[in-house]
Amino acid sequence: MKVYGHPLSTCTRTVLATLAEKGHEAELVLVDLTKGEHKSPAHFARHPFGVIPSFEDDDGFVLYESRAIIRYLDRQLSGPSLTPAAPKAYGLMEQYLSVEQCYFSPAAFKVSWERLFKPHMGGGPVDEARVVEGRQGVAKVFAILDPVLAKQPFLAGDSFSLAEVAWLPHLTFFLTFDEEKALLAEHKHVAAWWERISGRPAWRKVTGA
Amino acid sequence: MKVYGHPLSTCTRTVLATLAEKGHEAELVLVDLTKGEHKSPAHFARHPFGVIPSFEDDDGFVLYESRAIIRYLDRQLSGPSLTPAAPKAYGLMEQYLSVEQCYFSPAAFKVSWERLFKPHMGGGPVDEARVVEGRQGVAKVFAILDPVLAKQPFLAGDSFSLAEVAWLPHLTFFLTFDEEKALLAEHKHVAAWWERISGRPAWRKVTGA
Repeated sequence: MKVYGHPLSTCTRTVLATLAEKGHEAELVLVDLTKGEHKSPAHFARHPFGVIPSFEDDDGFVLYESRAIIRYLDRQLSGPSLTPAAPKAYGLMEQYLSVEQCYFSPAAFKVSWERLFKPHMGGGPVDEARVVEGRQGVAKVFAILDPVLAKQPFLAGDSFSLAEVAWLPHLTFFLTFDEEKALLAEHKHVAAWWERISGRPAWRKVTGA
Repeated sequence: MKVYGHPLSTCTRTVLATLAEKGHEAELVLVDLTKGEHKSPAHFARHPFGVIPSFEDDDGFVLYESRAIIRYLDRQLSGPSLTPAAPKAYGLMEQYLSVEQCYFSPAAFKVSWERLFKPHMGGGPVDEARVVEGRQGVAKVFAILDPVLAKQPFLAGDSFSLAEVAWLPHLTFFLTFDEEKALLAEHKHVAAWWERISGRPAWRKVTGA
């Protein structure tokens, strides 16, 4: 199996974490974004929208869009299931996958981009208004999650699922600096959940922690 | 079962179409957006992000986010399955659900908003630059879909799936006027697929066509 992506890309990390949770490995083929390789004909053949990651199975089957790839891998590969069998828990997993994609990550990325990535990429001064906007968005999401995670250990209920896998990449970058760690600490059930999921061997393997 | 939403909301229609495809009905409880009912405490209890739709099952189980609701309904309800059992077809369904959400619908909605909804809502003059931008985005997606749909009748392969259900609402609004119908006609396999899916009894029921 091959994953075409970048080790610091959140979407690539979601795929790698799924593989690690399932006890599998794939070859990570670097798509060098700084050289524009994601806009090369070879990559367009693997992902027609020219973004990363793309996945190629051992038999040549190609799939793109990280949240599709992780659902495919969970169904296709041996190893622990990361999708609840019960319809309600499955529905909740999907609900929190959508919350991550539509509400959490866009807000978290505003902060990570301004504070973590932009300074390393010569992107100019930090836009403090964007940081505040991002923090407010994340605070709203944390406030919604907190009572949910007071009642159950994981987003889908009793068991770790693809929902957690999808939250980890942006959440990890978001929690780089003290101000954001303090925001997490204000939501004790979200903070306890973060402790439960961030120390998992699969995630440590992906991040090299 | 209750769906809290609006009959013209694309996300509400996705849920109603799934129910209709499965041969089920739910009570549609109108959330009047013009009166701000989606920002009322009663609605926040059903959807903490204050958007529509939200779903309530017969036993009181509440789920929000349309793409989660449709996956839940497909697994929970009797009726024809709208999710392929084979992992590769399942992966493709999820890939095209993501293409709809991330690339197609944002582009299509630029056109629908400017040309269809804004004039009815006193939104001011049409922003032609946005229309062009939206059409270009849709043209790119159609060009990517066309060779795929030359080889298989549906997005996931041989059978109609949730991917089609999720494409229908924005695609229907997008194809209101002749210019957009002409763009579709330039992509004959996408056009043939549209003919296959838009005439389905479930979709006609939802749109009242």
